[in-house]
Amino acid sequence: MSKLVIVGTVAFDAIETPFGKTDKILGGAATFIGLSASQFNVDSAIVSVVGGDFPQEYLDLLSEKNIDISGIEIIKDGKTFFWSGRYHNDMNSRDTLATELNVLADFNPVVPQDYKDAEIVMLGNLHPIVQSSVLDQMTKKPKLAILDTMNFWMDSALEDLHNVIKRVDVITINDEEARQLTGEYSLVVAARKIHEMGPKYVVIKKGEHGALLFHNDSVFYAPALPLEEVFDPTGAGDTFAGGFAGYLAKTGDVSFENMKNAVIYGSTLASFCVEKFGTERMENLPKKEVHQRLQQFKDLTQFDIELT
Amino acid sequence: MSKLVIVGTVAFDAIETPFGKTDKILGGAATFIGLSASQFNVDSAIVSVVGGDFPQEYLDLLSEKNIDISGIEIIKDGKTFFWSGRYHNDMNSRDTLATELNVLADFNPVVPQDYKDAEIVMLGNLHPIVQSSVLDQMTKKPKLAILDTMNFWMDSALEDLHNVIKRVDVITINDEEARQLTGEYSLVVAARKIHEMGPKYVVIKKGEHGALLFHNDSVFYAPALPLEEVFDPTGAGDTFAGGFAGYLAKTGDVSFENMKNAVIYGSTLASFCVEKFGTERMENLPKKEVHQRLQQFKDLTQFDIELT
Repeated sequence: MSKLVIVGTVAFDAIETPFGKTDKILGGAATFIGLSASQFNVDSAIVSVVGGDFPQEYLDLLSEKNIDISGIEIIKDGKTFFWSGRYHNDMNSRDTLATELNVLADFNPVVPQDYKDAEIVMLGNLHPIVQSSVLDQMTKKPKLAILDTMNFWMDSALEDLHNVIKRVDVITINDEEARQLTGEYSLVVAARKIHEMGPKYVVIKKGEHGALLFHNDSVFYAPALPLEEVFDPTGAGDTFAGGFAGYLAKTGDVSFENMKNAVIYGSTLASFCVEKFGTERMENLPKKEVHQRLQQFKDLTQFDIELT
Repeated sequence: MSKLVIVGTVAFDAIETPFGKTDKILGGAATFIGLSASQFNVDSAIVSVVGGDFPQEYLDLLSEKNIDISGIEIIKDGKTFFWSGRYHNDMNSRDTLATELNVLADFNPVVPQDYKDAEIVMLGNLHPIVQSSVLDQMTKKPKLAILDTMNFWMDSALEDLHNVIKRVDVITINDEEARQLTGEYSLVVAARKIHEMGPKYVVIKKGEHGALLFHNDSVFYAPALPLEEVFDPTGAGDTFAGGFAGYLAKTGDVSFENMKNAVIYGSTLASFCVEKFGTERMENLPKKEVHQRLQQFKDLTQFDIELT
């Protein structure tokens, strides 16, 4: 088993969907990634920052999942990063109602000593300079560095983003962001251009339409499970990334063949995440249910045509 | 092997895409369905109507594919159905520039005597009364009746459409049409409502996002092959339906398990159709290329997670 270090936000979210709304609840990219990866009982740590207003019970929740939280800095007189958004009826688009950076504005990540030799590094969505700083602190080159990002950094810090993209092995990005980053509509062409930027593996997330994994001229596709109802999409992409990174950390095998399984696990875990508000579904997700849903993914995708 | 009877348009299309434009070329739902099904060397017939302006070489092309054309009525002093459209840059939407029904306005389909006992009936997109008329002419209940339709008939002939839907085993429909027909956004819920209208099998086509096959509580997903470039989407849905029907006719096995293979064949053949204008790619498509692409679909979708 490999060690996994996760950098990303640990935050408050307030969410409105057609099904209801929440007060400030637990959120943040690193939270979703960590909870998802914890399904694999890996040795993981979160590097993040919160304010003095962040409840101890949320930190305890992460600790109980065997996530090392010594890298989560607590700024006593600061406030935790807060995001609020409202989803439209189709659940595929949303309006951001509030973004309060708070303690995140001056975040200086410090990787705990025990995790500076982690084999897998998962760089959750954050300023690319913060992501680079985590890579700088690793005492040996990770077996696999995975980067998630979003259009916000393409608009505001493109050069920094390119600098970190060229240092990672895998990038996870959604379809519209892949198009924005490359100026190409075809995802096949976009993936090739992103390869040329550095990452040997490119994962393009298409929400309800699944995810594509590109590696050189090979491509693998993981569908999203067709669901009766998406209750709250918040964190689905991070949960996908956490499942992907967690499975690779558990198996220690970063081959393309094994990454296929990793994206299937990512899709599987994301399909749970959207069933309830925020992290609720992921906080207590029995392994048995995950296995049942993996079987559903097999039934959904596996066929047996003899090529004669 | 089962006999396959296909009803649908045989037509002229004029197409504009970002890559170029055509004069009047061979088109029509039954044409694409027939060419696609001919990959399986099945015993098939097209029931349709054309005008005196329809070139003999197009009829010869269909005959050479071993498609019985005795059910294609030729109205000497009439003009062939004509459709013209322009695709937008994303290739997912289009404007219809012209629709000239011509001989199609009074089309009275006549199933050739030899095909009145066909085991598989493929009702291509046409007025639902015409589709019903074909079912009326069958001397024994087909093993499988498949219906394709579109939003135009939901707007203009909904009651007739419901009358034919309740008589078929399989419906193929795109995602937006499934939503319109049922008033449900979730495709899982929409499929259940369509089941309740009659069809035991519901295929929802999502274009570049693949196709879903629903049967009771089971669902199977066939992705679309990620392509560098979609040159012309015209006929892709019909080519999908033709591959689906052709494979089922060839194997004679209409079980859900075998329908999984049928939708994979449908997706595979549709992935060729979009590579050139109109029917061009389908007119001379070597079996070897089809098999190579089926292997690509396997590589794209098959994984091997042990459920422990």
